[in-house]
Amino acid sequence: MQNFVFHNPTKILFGKGTVASIGDETVLLGKKVLLVYGSGSIKNNGLYEQVIQSLHSAEATIIEYPGVQSNPVLSHVHTGIELAKENNCDVVCAVGGGSVIDEAKAICAGATVQHDVWKFFTGKKSVRNPLPLTTVLTLAASGSEMNSGMVITNTETSQKFGFANKHLYPKTSILDPTVTCSVPADYTAYGAVDAVAHVLEFYFTTVDPYTPVQDRLMEGLIINAMESCDRVLQNLNDYKARADLMWTATLALNGLTGAGLGKVGFPMHMIEHSLSAFYNVPHGAGLSAVIPGWMRYHANRQAPRFAQFAERVFDIREGSVEKKAEQGIEALSAWFTKVKSPTNITALNIPGKDISKIAENAMTLAKVWRMKDYNEKKIEEILQKCL
Amino acid sequence: MQNFVFHNPTKILFGKGTVASIGDETVLLGKKVLLVYGSGSIKNNGLYEQVIQSLHSAEATIIEYPGVQSNPVLSHVHTGIELAKENNCDVVCAVGGGSVIDEAKAICAGATVQHDVWKFFTGKKSVRNPLPLTTVLTLAASGSEMNSGMVITNTETSQKFGFANKHLYPKTSILDPTVTCSVPADYTAYGAVDAVAHVLEFYFTTVDPYTPVQDRLMEGLIINAMESCDRVLQNLNDYKARADLMWTATLALNGLTGAGLGKVGFPMHMIEHSLSAFYNVPHGAGLSAVIPGWMRYHANRQAPRFAQFAERVFDIREGSVEKKAEQGIEALSAWFTKVKSPTNITALNIPGKDISKIAENAMTLAKVWRMKDYNEKKIEEILQKCL
Repeated sequence: MQNFVFHNPTKILFGKGTVASIGDETVLLGKKVLLVYGSGSIKNNGLYEQVIQSLHSAEATIIEYPGVQSNPVLSHVHTGIELAKENNCDVVCAVGGGSVIDEAKAICAGATVQHDVWKFFTGKKSVRNPLPLTTVLTLAASGSEMNSGMVITNTETSQKFGFANKHLYPKTSILDPTVTCSVPADYTAYGAVDAVAHVLEFYFTTVDPYTPVQDRLMEGLIINAMESCDRVLQNLNDYKARADLMWTATLALNGLTGAGLGKVGFPMHMIEHSLSAFYNVPHGAGLSAVIPGWMRYHANRQAPRFAQFAERVFDIREGSVEKKAEQGIEALSAWFTKVKSPTNITALNIPGKDISKIAENAMTLAKVWRMKDYNEKKIEEILQKCL
Repeated sequence: MQNFVFHNPTKILFGKGTVASIGDETVLLGKKVLLVYGSGSIKNNGLYEQVIQSLHSAEATIIEYPGVQSNPVLSHVHTGIELAKENNCDVVCAVGGGSVIDEAKAICAGATVQHDVWKFFTGKKSVRNPLPLTTVLTLAASGSEMNSGMVITNTETSQKFGFANKHLYPKTSILDPTVTCSVPADYTAYGAVDAVAHVLEFYFTTVDPYTPVQDRLMEGLIINAMESCDRVLQNLNDYKARADLMWTATLALNGLTGAGLGKVGFPMHMIEHSLSAFYNVPHGAGLSAVIPGWMRYHANRQAPRFAQFAERVFDIREGSVEKKAEQGIEALSAWFTKVKSPTNITALNIPGKDISKIAENAMTLAKVWRMKDYNEKKIEEILQKCL
C-alpha cells in the first residue's frame, strides 16, 4: 500500500424524505443562496418545489441559476460566477446530476477570485477559499456529490478538462433515491457505466502491484453497480435497487477506492472526454464505447490483474490467465450490451478517420493530467481497438 | 437500504514517516496538549521520542498523562480529566491502541463539563463541546482512530460500557504501519479478531434483509482481515501486510459498513464486555471465545444469511443452506484456532458455573444499548454454546 491522505468531510443524508433538509443544511453556510440546476426536469417531478419550499422555510434568499447542460460548458460557468458575485451569494446549492454539481463547484471556485476560473482547470492557479456547496443529487453516476472534482468543457478550445481540490467537497449532499426514479432507462444505464468506469480506472492503473484491501472494495462496487442497474432496468421505480445503485456510485469515486493505490490515471475518461468534446455523446455511452478497447489493449500487458478481475467480478474460474483476462473483458462488454450502452465508437457514428483528431485532442488533457505513459500513437492504437 | 446520515470528518495520514506530522496536526487545534499514552511500550520502540520531537518542533506545550491500561478504567479517566482541567489543555493527543484512544476520547468529553463523565456512558448526558483529539495509532484493532465511539470499564460497578457521539471523531489520526511491527503475534491476532468481530456484528444484526452494497464491503473486509493477519504472523515485520491489516481494521468500524443497515446491535461485544469486566481477558481473545457460540445459536434462525457468509467469505459452495451456514462457522473457528485465539470460554478458564453471573452483567449493558431482543435466559443459552 502506498502512503495516502484520506479526508472526506462531506456529510451525506441518504434516503426517502431527506430533500426536506436541504434548506436547513444550506443556510447553516449562509442565507444568500445561488440555486444551480439544469434544463428544468426538476420542475417535472416535483423536486424543484420541494427544494424551494425547504429553502424558504429556512429563510434563505434564493438567486436561481438554471440552464446547466450535460457536459457543462465554461461560458455558462462564467455567467454563473458573475451572478454569484453581483448578488454576494454566501453559498451555492446544486440540484441535479454530476453536470450540475460539477458546474456548481466551478462557480464556487470562481466566485471568490478575480481571474478566469479556467486557470484552475489548466493548473495555473489553485483553489483556496471557494464558496461552500450543498447538493441534492438526481442521478447515480458521477460521484461528484461526495468528492472534490469536476469536469467542464471549454467549447472555444474544444477542451473537456477536470481537476480536484480539497476545498471543493460539498458540505452536505442529499441522496434521496426516489428522486432518481424518473431517470429513464438509458441514462440510468449510462450512470451505472460511469460508476463502473470510475472503479476500473483505479483498478487497472494503480502503480502498486498488490492492493488487496482496495481490490475487494472495488470488485464489490463493480458487482453492485451492475446488479443494482439490472434490477432498476427491470422496474424503474424499484426504490431498493435505486438506493443500491445510488450509494454504489457515490462510493465508487469518493476517494476510498484510490486511497493507498498511489498515482492512478484516468485514461478511459481522458479518451472519452475527447469523444464528447467533439460529438457531445452521453458521458456513460462514450465510456462504454472506449472501455473494452482500452482493456483489450492492456490485457496482455497486465494479464494477472485482468484475470483477477474476471475471477472475482464474473466468477470466471476456468482456463489460463490470458484466457480468463479475455473472458472478463467479454463479460463486461456483454453487460454493456445488456443495458444497451454501446461497446465501440462505431455504434456512436464516430468514423475511423477521426481517430487521429481524437487522439490529438486527448493528448492535450494527458499533458494537463500528467499522464506521461500516453502519446498520440498509443491513443490511436487504443482507439483502433474501439472501432 | 435504510435511511442514514454518514459524516466522518476524521483526516487520515497513512503510511511510513507520517508520525512526524503529529505536531503540526495537533497544534492546529491548540498549543497546550495533553499527551495520553499507555504503559510505556512506546518508549521501547522509539515512537515516544518521535512524537515528543514533532510536538516540540510545532511549539506545543506538553502535559504527559501515561498509564492507560488495556480495558481502560474510569478512575484513570477521572484523573486525566482533572489534569486537563488544571492545565487548561486545548487539545488531547493519544498515542496508542484502542484503549488509549478510547480513554482519550472520554477525557476530551469530560474535560469541558462539570458533571461526572460516566453520565455520558449511562446515557444521562450528551456530549456537546469536547476538547479536540489527534491520535497516533499503534495497534490495528478497534477502529477508534476513525470513529466516534469508546469503551470504558467502571471497576466499582463492574460495568464495561461504551457510547458514541458525533463530536468525538478524532480530527486527525496518524496510521504508520511500521509502528505496529513491534506488536507481538498474540496481540496482532487479537486485533484482527476485533476487526472481524466489528464487521460480523453489523453483518448478522442488521434489521434490513437486503443490503448488497454493504454486504460486499463487509465480506471483503473480513477476508482481508484474515488474510493480512495470516501474512503478518508469517513475518511480524512485513510492512505491506501490516499496512493491509491496519487499514482494514480502520475501515471495519468507521461507519461505512453500517451506513444503510438501520438499527444494528453489538451482542458479541456486549457478552465479551462482561467477560473482560470480570476476568480481564484480552478483548480479542474474549471475542473469539464468544463468536462461534453466538453464531451457532443464531445460524438456524438466519440460515440464508449465514450461508451467504460461508459462500462469499470461505468459498463454501456445496451443500444445503443449513450445511453451508454450519461450515462457515466452523471455517471461522478454524481461523481463530490457526491464529491461536481461543474459540470458547473454557479455554479462558471461565467456568460454566459463572454463566448466570456473566449473563446478569451483560443485561445491564443490553439495557443501556437498548438491545431489546436480549434477556438473561437467551444470553445464558448463548454462553452454554461457548463452553
